[in-house]
Amino acid sequence: MRYVRFAVGEQIFWGELEEDTVHGTLEPGGTRTLANYHLADVTLMPPAHPSKIVCVGRNYAKHIKELGNDQNGLPQEPGLFLKGPNTLAAPGGHLAYPEWTQSFHYEGELAVVMGRRAHHLTRENALDYVLGYTMAIDLTARDVQKTDLQWFRAKAADGFCPLGPWIETVLDPSDLRIQTRVNGETRQDGRTSDMIFKLPDILAYVTRYVTLEPGDVVLTGTPEGVGELQRGDHIEVEIDGIGVLDFHID
Amino acid sequence: MRYVRFAVGEQIFWGELEEDTVHGTLEPGGTRTLANYHLADVTLMPPAHPSKIVCVGRNYAKHIKELGNDQNGLPQEPGLFLKGPNTLAAPGGHLAYPEWTQSFHYEGELAVVMGRRAHHLTRENALDYVLGYTMAIDLTARDVQKTDLQWFRAKAADGFCPLGPWIETVLDPSDLRIQTRVNGETRQDGRTSDMIFKLPDILAYVTRYVTLEPGDVVLTGTPEGVGELQRGDHIEVEIDGIGVLDFHID
Repeated sequence: MRYVRFAVGEQIFWGELEEDTVHGTLEPGGTRTLANYHLADVTLMPPAHPSKIVCVGRNYAKHIKELGNDQNGLPQEPGLFLKGPNTLAAPGGHLAYPEWTQSFHYEGELAVVMGRRAHHLTRENALDYVLGYTMAIDLTARDVQKTDLQWFRAKAADGFCPLGPWIETVLDPSDLRIQTRVNGETRQDGRTSDMIFKLPDILAYVTRYVTLEPGDVVLTGTPEGVGELQRGDHIEVEIDGIGVLDFHID
Repeated sequence: MRYVRFAVGEQIFWGELEEDTVHGTLEPGGTRTLANYHLADVTLMPPAHPSKIVCVGRNYAKHIKELGNDQNGLPQEPGLFLKGPNTLAAPGGHLAYPEWTQSFHYEGELAVVMGRRAHHLTRENALDYVLGYTMAIDLTARDVQKTDLQWFRAKAADGFCPLGPWIETVLDPSDLRIQTRVNGETRQDGRTSDMIFKLPDILAYVTRYVTLEPGDVVLTGTPEGVGELQRGDHIEVEIDGIGVLDFHID
């Protein structure tokens, strides 16, 4: 099943997507008590309303190498960081190129939306707490990432996490092709099976320290092929079995 | 005026505190439409419901020096990081000493609660967007702070931000004495006038990158005197003109 979150005027609803029809619901997976809409007639929102977005840095070996972060070998534990809800941006949306960076990078990622409150998960039960999967772009100001004390400006500025277009609930996340295209040209082409820390291990590790709430989002890291964005660029992140997230830099 | 946030059974309300009487309201500064309670009869909650907690690291020169972080002089820009809402803990509350750190530190701080949505503030108008002031303890796992990729486990684990006991709305934050006591012994004794980046400059800087929402919290850094906590410790953070936040490590 595919869940969308969408706006009608000032109000925000959830819906189940079947072909091009959105069956309105009050919550993801709720009963279809609201009106039906044609997908083309609704404004899609980021398909999550998280209290926090937990991200894994450096989770693909070739990406670690391309940024020159492999001097000490591969990480022994997931390297986690936070993005706030202010970073969310809608699928199909636009963000102005931030004037304060001279090196603005895309990072296409598999995103996980949590379905249940999760604390001290095990690798065996972790996926039972997942609502479903979608795409994210972990937009990154690479220059200030290298010079700032922490990755706050670099990763957590307004609009730095385009998410969507929908949550796919029925999917095995362990070996999916993930591609990022910029203006139609393929820049990233990896597989989730190349993650250093697999999703059940990530969720078990995160929830040892931090309770995840329903709607919280976990970003699982980016494969090799990150690079510069320019004003006017059109980004697409595609994951087999989910769909395509597209986004524009103005 | 002092605003408290408190629980009665499963419900959470706001209130205005006058002497020992809580006048119940639906939101901070709302009309007194709800019942009155005696302060001793209510369970105080963290006096904010933030979408994010933005923190300034290294904002007092002597604290930078005590941690040996002064090799490159003082910071030229505020060093920011995030704590999620999962870190909030109630005044008077308890947290179990985390079994995964061998160096658990208190950091007493002046906390700011935002009253209005804030984007691109100036140092001149920044304080107009503040609802008021309270105390926070930026609990920190100092050992993993030094070894992890980012300060996620070190700063953002569940319960790592005791906050309260109330918001003081009428206060000049520019030169307040701030003290931290552990088991009654003074460990930190500084003044907010010693901040490297003053509050109006912090808020102007943060909101250049990140929109602050009503209820969002900004932690302004800790003076010198941080140190180890042990199981059974009782921490108090006192700021003149606000009050005392106390908290227990079990």
